Amino acid sequence: MSKTGQDIYSFTASIFPICRSLTGNGVRETLAMINEYISETGLNLNIYEIPTGTQVFDWTIPKEWEIRAGYIEDENGDKIIDFLDNNLHILGYSTPIDRWVDLEELKKNIYTQPEQPDVIPYVTSYYRERYGFCMSEIQKNSLRPGKYHMYIDSELRDGSLTYADLVIQGKSDQEIMITSYICHPSMANNECSGPAVLAELIKYVNAMENRRYTYRFVLNPETIGAITYLSKKYQHLKEKLVAGVVLSCVGDDRAYSIIESRYADTIADKGLKNILSHHGNVYNYSYLSRGSDERQYNAPGIDLPVVGFCRSKYGEYNEYHTSADNMDLVSPEGFQGSYDVMTEWIRAMEINDYYKVTVLCEPQLGKRGLYPTISQKGSYNEVKAMTDFIAYADGKNDVFDISNIIGIPVKDIIPIIEKLFEAGLVEKRLVNFKD
Amino acid sequence: MSKTGQDIYSFTASIFPICRSLTGNGVRETLAMINEYISETGLNLNIYEIPTGTQVFDWTIPKEWEIRAGYIEDENGDKIIDFLDNNLHILGYSTPIDRWVDLEELKKNIYTQPEQPDVIPYVTSYYRERYGFCMSEIQKNSLRPGKYHMYIDSELRDGSLTYADLVIQGKSDQEIMITSYICHPSMANNECSGPAVLAELIKYVNAMENRRYTYRFVLNPETIGAITYLSKKYQHLKEKLVAGVVLSCVGDDRAYSIIESRYADTIADKGLKNILSHHGNVYNYSYLSRGSDERQYNAPGIDLPVVGFCRSKYGEYNEYHTSADNMDLVSPEGFQGSYDVMTEWIRAMEINDYYKVTVLCEPQLGKRGLYPTISQKGSYNEVKAMTDFIAYADGKNDVFDISNIIGIPVKDIIPIIEKLFEAGLVEKRLVNFKD
Amino acid sequence: MSKTGQDIYSFTASIFPICRSLTGNGVRETLAMINEYISETGLNLNIYEIPTGTQVFDWTIPKEWEIRAGYIEDENGDKIIDFLDNNLHILGYSTPIDRWVDLEELKKNIYTQPEQPDVIPYVTSYYRERYGFCMSEIQKNSLRPGKYHMYIDSELRDGSLTYADLVIQGKSDQEIMITSYICHPSMANNECSGPAVLAELIKYVNAMENRRYTYRFVLNPETIGAITYLSKKYQHLKEKLVAGVVLSCVGDDRAYSIIESRYADTIADKGLKNILSHHGNVYNYSYLSRGSDERQYNAPGIDLPVVGFCRSKYGEYNEYHTSADNMDLVSPEGFQGSYDVMTEWIRAMEINDYYKVTVLCEPQLGKRGLYPTISQKGSYNEVKAMTDFIAYADGKNDVFDISNIIGIPVKDIIPIIEKLFEAGLVEKRLVNFKD
Repeated sequence: MSKTGQDIYSFTASIFPICRSLTGNGVRETLAMINEYISETGLNLNIYEIPTGTQVFDWTIPKEWEIRAGYIEDENGDKIIDFLDNNLHILGYSTPIDRWVDLEELKKNIYTQPEQPDVIPYVTSYYRERYGFCMSEIQKNSLRPGKYHMYIDSELRDGSLTYADLVIQGKSDQEIMITSYICHPSMANNECSGPAVLAELIKYVNAMENRRYTYRFVLNPETIGAITYLSKKYQHLKEKLVAGVVLSCVGDDRAYSIIESRYADTIADKGLKNILSHHGNVYNYSYLSRGSDERQYNAPGIDLPVVGFCRSKYGEYNEYHTSADNMDLVSPEGFQGSYDVMTEWIRAMEINDYYKVTVLCEPQLGKRGLYPTISQKGSYNEVKAMTDFIAYADGKNDVFDISNIIGIPVKDIIPIIEKLFEAGLVEKRLVNFKD
Repeated sequence: MSKTGQDIYSFTASIFPICRSLTGNGVRETLAMINEYISETGLNLNIYEIPTGTQVFDWTIPKEWEIRAGYIEDENGDKIIDFLDNNLHILGYSTPIDRWVDLEELKKNIYTQPEQPDVIPYVTSYYRERYGFCMSEIQKNSLRPGKYHMYIDSELRDGSLTYADLVIQGKSDQEIMITSYICHPSMANNECSGPAVLAELIKYVNAMENRRYTYRFVLNPETIGAITYLSKKYQHLKEKLVAGVVLSCVGDDRAYSIIESRYADTIADKGLKNILSHHGNVYNYSYLSRGSDERQYNAPGIDLPVVGFCRSKYGEYNEYHTSADNMDLVSPEGFQGSYDVMTEWIRAMEINDYYKVTVLCEPQLGKRGLYPTISQKGSYNEVKAMTDFIAYADGKNDVFDISNIIGIPVKDIIPIIEKLFEAGLVEKRLVNFKD
Repeated sequence: MSKTGQDIYSFTASIFPICRSLTGNGVRETLAMINEYISETGLNLNIYEIPTGTQVFDWTIPKEWEIRAGYIEDENGDKIIDFLDNNLHILGYSTPIDRWVDLEELKKNIYTQPEQPDVIPYVTSYYRERYGFCMSEIQKNSLRPGKYHMYIDSELRDGSLTYADLVIQGKSDQEIMITSYICHPSMANNECSGPAVLAELIKYVNAMENRRYTYRFVLNPETIGAITYLSKKYQHLKEKLVAGVVLSCVGDDRAYSIIESRYADTIADKGLKNILSHHGNVYNYSYLSRGSDERQYNAPGIDLPVVGFCRSKYGEYNEYHTSADNMDLVSPEGFQGSYDVMTEWIRAMEINDYYKVTVLCEPQLGKRGLYPTISQKGSYNEVKAMTDFIAYADGKNDVFDISNIIGIPVKDIIPIIEKLFEAGLVEKRLVNFKD
């Protein structure tokens, strides 16, 4: 493993403690830290603020939420739970409260995950104003009758929703998009991992020479942030976007997952599936299992070629949306795997084209030093990949198609293409994948 | 179970004793009883008579068969078998005979089903004139040497072939056809069940408000009757028919079966398969297993979108075409199941269209009271069907397609469509399925 | 088994001893013997000579190789190996050598197949000049230290490459091609079997009356011979070739194999797969397993509808490219099977067309004596194939399609077509399969 996985892990740890939500300063702080992390590139995220009340398609930008403190105190003045200990203890978007109640009344405002009695669940109430507290089922059951002080110092006020993008220009205006979301409090895999890997990919793309594609990186609060972004950009994206990936839960090391586009028929699906087919323990989820911003990018009428990419998919692992989704769940190895898949996908997308062999019948590889000159049973397996590539380099298949047919990973096809190009044996059709 | 299954069962019992054949008064009596059964609707079957000798495509209307009596008598004057006991005892379309013969000669004219030794087989000779008797293998083997009197009082004379139809107009001239056959003597599942369920469906369709489609009900002797009907109506049906179902063997409760159209590619196939996919014990038969009038509707050049529907498929159950196919084989439960599938199919056909969501990105269901306002792991499964419907309501899928993709029965999608319509969130494309 | 399998076996035995190579008199002798074998037809192969140095697409015709003698002699004058005993002992295309060396030096020029220690491997060096000797691993290991005399009396000189074709005209100019290769020394299955079956098929085709297609038989050294042939004929073949088969390894009796065309979508694939589906132990190899001249016929830009046909496929059986591929490996039964498949395929190709029933609805088979006149459960299976053929004779399916749908071998459909034609119940669309 290169040290990249470790770098991403460390950066994830640094943004983990921040209390993010749909709106508010947690989002802004996280974006500022990402800018710091990518400062070596000389690039900066563009940051946008959309005022409360703005209409975005079928939705309205909500009030901005600020939380300063939150706890439950018992009669002895002991804090049963405290937002300072874990920001999951306060229901997301809680309105303020400052009231002494008895246990029965208190319990009406406590959320737990009864089937996982030892974790604090992550609960929000974005679109109806209420307040609430979250704790483990065990803790809730241990509460003794008595008086309790419910205290939340928060504010829901007109403000704005924050999102960010960054575009790195390539030779073509056609775009590849990588996006993730920033709206969850302290959870490691289902929040911090996505922005962290995205930040590392900004560095990677910026360092690429002769970029064919323009790369668009987008970070927004999930759902309403993506809807906001699309309300401004969907016409542009429909014209330019070749393929996009939503990063989510990319920090653990248990599996690789793709969430297909609506009909699983885009080049984003084909490319990422091809790459994953050469990695172990891969889960292929249909669009019916969607859950992150691929929902908006694939909505009818939007119809963008975007898939989701996870290690363990959101909703499918036990720690999801609980306090157990912490820095122990993710690992440098997990991040490295995600980074490797994404960079392999990017390199494959960059070289992807419809190649065509330039001679009729098989070329004579031997005279170009590309074939063994002695023929004996078993001796020519080494050039099998090359001859198979040539056999299907008929101008009808892109590199993913050929890779799928001949069973060779694109990363191993790339050097073959380079040798054949040098020998003048193949040409590109120079396909515009948006045609 | 509603009482409908019981009603159909009772009506089946009432038409069971009649001796039907390709032609003759058995057909006419059955049609008259159906008119009586549907009299509450104020509707009447149109009844047609086509004279013997008329050319219908490659076929000629045969002579009309009348049978008044038939038996085998032994030397003691005891009737070994008698048409009055069971009309299966006489070979269908038997010519008259009145002759004393010895046992050896008698046996040449006896038909049995040796592998089912205790049943009377159903045997006919429509297109070559002969006479014959049917009995169980056991009975045949028990006959003692001696003289026997073969007696059939029947007539083959110029007359006519009888069939019937009934059209219930809807808002559109596009048609849905439901057909069955009337040409078998006393067999319950493979004869009486089809006309009986069809009669009940006439009542159902007549009671439907705002019928979208025009419904055509057709009853004819199998094969030549369907050919006759098509020789008069196929141009009309090619222009108007959206989907049709041939009902056969719809009275037992052991299975559900579909016989696919020639290429299994019509909306009749798609619709009925979708409905059946949510019932148990379903058998999918390809067109190679055809056997009833779907043969004519699907013939090359006719090419109508018609499938067969059975409970236990003709030819696949042991009692088929024997005296064991009697009122013990069918049941109110069996009829109710067939009736439920057919009415579910009709309702699905009526609502079927290409729906399209009216907003870009996901609609905000919460503000319309269609979504829970609190978000916690596991809490939103209840609206999964609705969001999945919306995800594929892109104007490219009909309701059966969406049902197949999202795995929800159409009957559960209907209320979703109604809610979304009310909320202005979907629109119909108003597809003409004959385009 | 007819005596044809025995005839082919005997002819194979007669050409087995000849030392063929890419070029040279071995090829010419073999072609002369084939002309002798088919002399009863009055036909002769056309024989072509292409000079050394001629450019054929990406390749150059090599020098012609002549070998007169070759052996290794020990200090006692005993010949360790001798070309006269087995022509596999000399590396194909060896340059001359006449030198005494010690064991260590000798071994550098010895080729064995270590994992099959008791066979002489078949090794060549066509495109780089070197010399060498082949023997079993066991023999090599038994050599004692000492002096050895390496002796090869051979010549690589400007000459020519030899190939042959023969065209038997049919009513149409559209062509069916059967080809094999002649360039291997004494190996029975992977060399002699192909030309021998091809020669027998020349007799068969010549004897066919009313040939629909023109048949092209081609024999050439593998790879460069096919490339040479295509450099002269590919435009003609692209215009005329309906289907072609490369025969290779068609003499053993262990399996049947097809090597699919590049996309497995040609009528050659469809036809041969259909025929084989009614034989036992069939292996279906994708184009990724190609190895003989189907590589050239299917190359991008050539794109001809050609498949490979083998019994045990080259490269897949243990004796392949060794001295164990001898006359014990092949058998009259093996040849008969190949011959039967190929002649069945030819007959099927000849009758293949898009048939259409001439009447609407099912025809009345009974009045034409094509259907039993008595109907009883189980009595009509005998005409099932005929009614199924009619059901799909809608002008959209060729005979292979119908055979695949209804599961009846084409050879059993041919008499059905003949009866229906006679009865005027079907017509041909007279399809030009090159359209």
